[in-house]
Amino acid sequence: MSTGNKSKTAIRLLVENWAEAVRNKDLAGILAYHDEDIIMYDVPEPFQSRGIEAYIKTWDTYYAWSQNNLGIFDIRELHITAGEDVAYCCAAMRCAGVDDNNEDEFLDFRLTIGFKKIDGQWWFMHEHHSLPAI
Amino acid sequence: MSTGNKSKTAIRLLVENWAEAVRNKDLAGILAYHDEDIIMYDVPEPFQSRGIEAYIKTWDTYYAWSQNNLGIFDIRELHITAGEDVAYCCAAMRCAGVDDNNEDEFLDFRLTIGFKKIDGQWWFMHEHHSLPAI
Repeated sequence: MSTGNKSKTAIRLLVENWAEAVRNKDLAGILAYHDEDIIMYDVPEPFQSRGIEAYIKTWDTYYAWSQNNLGIFDIRELHITAGEDVAYCCAAMRCAGVDDNNEDEFLDFRLTIGFKKIDGQWWFMHEHHSLPAI
Repeated sequence: MSTGNKSKTAIRLLVENWAEAVRNKDLAGILAYHDEDIIMYDVPEPFQSRGIEAYIKTWDTYYAWSQNNLGIFDIRELHITAGEDVAYCCAAMRCAGVDDNNEDEFLDFRLTIGFKKIDGQWWFMHEHHSLPAI
């Protein structure tokens, strides 16, 4: 495999493992390869979250809504662009939570992730999750 | 300058020129370094736009709202991560348009861009614009 294809394979696995950790509400797994200076743009406010402590809070917000009742955090479409030591991907995602009437709510969202390779390991440096505004 | 710093400088200039083209409603300038297979996640629907023709339509939507009355499309904060041939940036942005009451409306949004270097030139391959959901 070319370096580019090896990187794509490594990043696909990284994203799949991260999504699985989200489904399992496994915070250590979610954070396993996240840089301490990560910049997060999440679906709900705040406008941005800087650093790993702020990033962790966005998952508190997520689980308060999702209640993890269905354990859905699915990658429906994933496009990876990888170089030697910088990469990004964009994805169509689906998650599920509980609405104000205590009914299951399904949410399709867009996700872009920025990665950097440090000492042979790819790291999440940036995440951007969003819904289209109505 | 190191290759990484040269790439950062080139990408900063590219993003600044693109934002200036947006302010000037200069479609040729907006599209100058956009790949024909670009994947766009915009602030309003659609969920995603694939390819340059679909990308152009997102600017029709933008100018229908902005009316370009103030010509604001400002980069307030820009973080660039650049490798040899792949890069991404994330930015806090501000634009302005006209609301339903015909009053000026200012909108702060998040922007992530993915780039690829092809034959010595950096290209926009992916854009993700969003507001936090309320």
